[in-house]
Amino acid sequence: MNQKKTPSQSATIMNELVLPNDTNTLNNLMGGRLLHWMDIVAAIAAQKHSGKIVVTASVDSVSFGKSIKLGDVVTLEARVTRSFNTSMEIHISVSAENIPSGEKFKSNEAYYTFVALDRNSHPVKVPELKPETEEEVKRYDGALRRRQLRLILAGKMKPDEATELRALFIPE
Amino acid sequence: MNQKKTPSQSATIMNELVLPNDTNTLNNLMGGRLLHWMDIVAAIAAQKHSGKIVVTASVDSVSFGKSIKLGDVVTLEARVTRSFNTSMEIHISVSAENIPSGEKFKSNEAYYTFVALDRNSHPVKVPELKPETEEEVKRYDGALRRRQLRLILAGKMKPDEATELRALFIPE
Amino acid sequence: MNQKKTPSQSATIMNELVLPNDTNTLNNLMGGRLLHWMDIVAAIAAQKHSGKIVVTASVDSVSFGKSIKLGDVVTLEARVTRSFNTSMEIHISVSAENIPSGEKFKSNEAYYTFVALDRNSHPVKVPELKPETEEEVKRYDGALRRRQLRLILAGKMKPDEATELRALFIPE
Amino acid sequence: MNQKKTPSQSATIMNELVLPNDTNTLNNLMGGRLLHWMDIVAAIAAQKHSGKIVVTASVDSVSFGKSIKLGDVVTLEARVTRSFNTSMEIHISVSAENIPSGEKFKSNEAYYTFVALDRNSHPVKVPELKPETEEEVKRYDGALRRRQLRLILAGKMKPDEATELRALFIPE
Amino acid sequence: MNQKKTPSQSATIMNELVLPNDTNTLNNLMGGRLLHWMDIVAAIAAQKHSGKIVVTASVDSVSFGKSIKLGDVVTLEARVTRSFNTSMEIHISVSAENIPSGEKFKSNEAYYTFVALDRNSHPVKVPELKPETEEEVKRYDGALRRRQLRLILAGKMKPDEATELRALFIPE
Amino acid sequence: MNQKKTPSQSATIMNELVLPNDTNTLNNLMGGRLLHWMDIVAAIAAQKHSGKIVVTASVDSVSFGKSIKLGDVVTLEARVTRSFNTSMEIHISVSAENIPSGEKFKSNEAYYTFVALDRNSHPVKVPELKPETEEEVKRYDGALRRRQLRLILAGKMKPDEATELRALFIPE
Repeated sequence: MNQKKTPSQSATIMNELVLPNDTNTLNNLMGGRLLHWMDIVAAIAAQKHSGKIVVTASVDSVSFGKSIKLGDVVTLEARVTRSFNTSMEIHISVSAENIPSGEKFKSNEAYYTFVALDRNSHPVKVPELKPETEEEVKRYDGALRRRQLRLILAGKMKPDEATELRALFIPE
Repeated sequence: MNQKKTPSQSATIMNELVLPNDTNTLNNLMGGRLLHWMDIVAAIAAQKHSGKIVVTASVDSVSFGKSIKLGDVVTLEARVTRSFNTSMEIHISVSAENIPSGEKFKSNEAYYTFVALDRNSHPVKVPELKPETEEEVKRYDGALRRRQLRLILAGKMKPDEATELRALFIPE
Repeated sequence: MNQKKTPSQSATIMNELVLPNDTNTLNNLMGGRLLHWMDIVAAIAAQKHSGKIVVTASVDSVSFGKSIKLGDVVTLEARVTRSFNTSMEIHISVSAENIPSGEKFKSNEAYYTFVALDRNSHPVKVPELKPETEEEVKRYDGALRRRQLRLILAGKMKPDEATELRALFIPE
Repeated sequence: MNQKKTPSQSATIMNELVLPNDTNTLNNLMGGRLLHWMDIVAAIAAQKHSGKIVVTASVDSVSFGKSIKLGDVVTLEARVTRSFNTSMEIHISVSAENIPSGEKFKSNEAYYTFVALDRNSHPVKVPELKPETEEEVKRYDGALRRRQLRLILAGKMKPDEATELRALFIPE
Repeated sequence: MNQKKTPSQSATIMNELVLPNDTNTLNNLMGGRLLHWMDIVAAIAAQKHSGKIVVTASVDSVSFGKSIKLGDVVTLEARVTRSFNTSMEIHISVSAENIPSGEKFKSNEAYYTFVALDRNSHPVKVPELKPETEEEVKRYDGALRRRQLRLILAGKMKPDEATELRALFIPE
Repeated sequence: MNQKKTPSQSATIMNELVLPNDTNTLNNLMGGRLLHWMDIVAAIAAQKHSGKIVVTASVDSVSFGKSIKLGDVVTLEARVTRSFNTSMEIHISVSAENIPSGEKFKSNEAYYTFVALDRNSHPVKVPELKPETEEEVKRYDGALRRRQLRLILAGKMKPDEATELRALFIPE
């Protein structure tokens, strides 16, 4: 378990067709269905990185932009950004494509975290992450700040302990 | 559309049984399925408040605690906390109950926002909210701060413009 | 198990959005899907009353009125009306709302019965019901008559033994 | 539309495998799923008889016997028993088979009624039924009595007007 | 296990309604959904013939003709054509009917093969088939040739060993 | 439409988790579900290559090897191998991974063909394919032979007209 892994070793791609039951009466993909797909692709990436069964621990703030429509192809890409002892943060990027019209756009992105479990449902250590590309290093570094925000929002850390995060709000 | 509405006029309750396809191989409810149910119950509350079709605009940070298991009954309660011109913030509270064992626990809570649309998919004004109970007033007041955090996280506001939010990080 | 329970202790509400796969080619909710939802909400109420796993034993005659349409919100409310040793009768009331048009109507109601089972699938005693409101008392009283009709229709009782039920047909 | 049709011209058979999502935590098929399948097979038979789109109008009292289990094959057979102007009564018979153990049993039966609709959702006349076998004639004759019971239970007929049905309760 | 069985002893019929989620944006039934239904009806027939749990071993070339549309009723008929020690070849015939328009047509046919397994997932012998009708005899005889083609296509037999199949290509 | 496209321009990857409803009672993925997933991933690749809505025209012989189990991650990769006027042949390769045990294996591969349609459901020309890698060239060349086999199996070509295919059976 000492061996570090790179993000590309567990990167996962999923394509989904938007079917009628995924949409509301305006033929827009429902946000909840997309959150569900994001959870699945991220869970697969977390499983691949850890070699374990995983459970979702949290989802960071997600905002949805332009509507995805019935019949569009949705592409989801998941990548581990950092691991913390028994948990992993995963970045998911979502784009949509309406093939007959040729329109393709970036829909949204998000961070999910997962905890790795053994067969008795106890958390287990996961391999460390070794970021390689510039973007991977940037996301690796930002992971600490996002983790502080998560802990504050979950009421498990006081804002004035969040050293990294405070820098955002206080010009020093 | 001038008439204010109370949270209880659109409060919505949903109960779901956790079925095999909702779970991973440890028989835990998958986080994505729960996010999907939360979106549906919140969308119904937002529809009831606005009298319009709605689309999910964002989901705030959600953290999951104790595992919900196969066969549990999940109860979701959604309530409008504040409206902003054409959008509404909805609070969702989730609890789970394992009936044969008598165990019942609060699982998690979250805020989703929705935009109301007319038949041509254009945003339309929604009724203002008139909070009544003490808790409703507290959530109504906090809605501004959460909105600033959402805008910052989506890159649409600079942290030093978030007057309300900064107070959290800077002891004044 | 000696302690009586009130109907409101196990009352259960479920809201469902009518999605494309729930409808026929005229965009009407299919009756079978509604019967399925009624079974789930009633089973949850029966589970809550008994604290046990339950199986459906019978469904009383149900008639469907005005069509429920694609995109409508369906609200189902289930309430125990009486318990009989190891079984419970549940009343389910269904209403539908087309939110953009503001139309809301009562769709139909029904009685389902359930048997409580232990881990080895053997029937177990359930708590008695203590009706409180006037309507609850009325449904509690009518339960005997409905039970006789069920037994006759299932060929397990002869019509002339159904003392309560005969009164309906023979002016005395 | 003057031409009569026989029950066998629209008889419909459906086989379903009981999958995990159809069962409760004791691995029993949930009653609501079975009611849903019964509705689909009966609707197909009613469509075939009428040559029209149909909607479920009512379900008669159904009682469930021996549990159907995960992995069983469920066989449903639907047959028109009588038509009434714009509606049809359908008899559904359900059996289940556990193939590896060789066990096969009759599970239950029921009557559903359907109304035939034109493209504007208005009821339309359906062909009359010409029963052929002895059992078909018996079900054809009983249909009047069941119809009276349905009307009484739906509050649309007074018990003392139900001439046929009263005979069951009053030895003459 | 010595006793032979006829095709009609395990013949299986399935009817399915084409629902929105089964179709593409032109309202055509997707081929993959039909392949899934064909697998289920064929697996039930193979289970009935063998009295065992079965797994799909192969699917022969299938071509799809005229489009099946939303709302059509699809009828699938499966019949064992021959058994080979622990495996069975099943013929599936698919037709579709658009009831309101009265149009009915044969859609396609296919051969699937299944292996029978015991509780430990080991292959087990299945009963021999005794074809009865002329068509059953013809399919029984053709089964050897199809089996050779399957083995060649799977790279498990050399073309020049396929005595029966070669006759198709070499006028002798 | 004159411009050729390479296979990698439309290559599509899909990952799926095997859930309980996808499996039989031995916890093996059902073949029909896999055929359905293969159809979806291939249809997306065909849509991307043609920029049109597509329908499945045929599936070549598929054989399934080692069982895929509940909880496994299935990876499907689809690639256009050749286009023929209005149709495209797609190669799909399937592998499965049981992450907690670290076992990963190639499950099977197949060829599906699709026809591109315009908004009125008429076939339309698709771009030609320009194979690049050695394997792509090999599959491009083999496509003619597979097409002849398909036409023979569908009864649309006589075996002795299948010049390319005959070579397999007749050592020249």
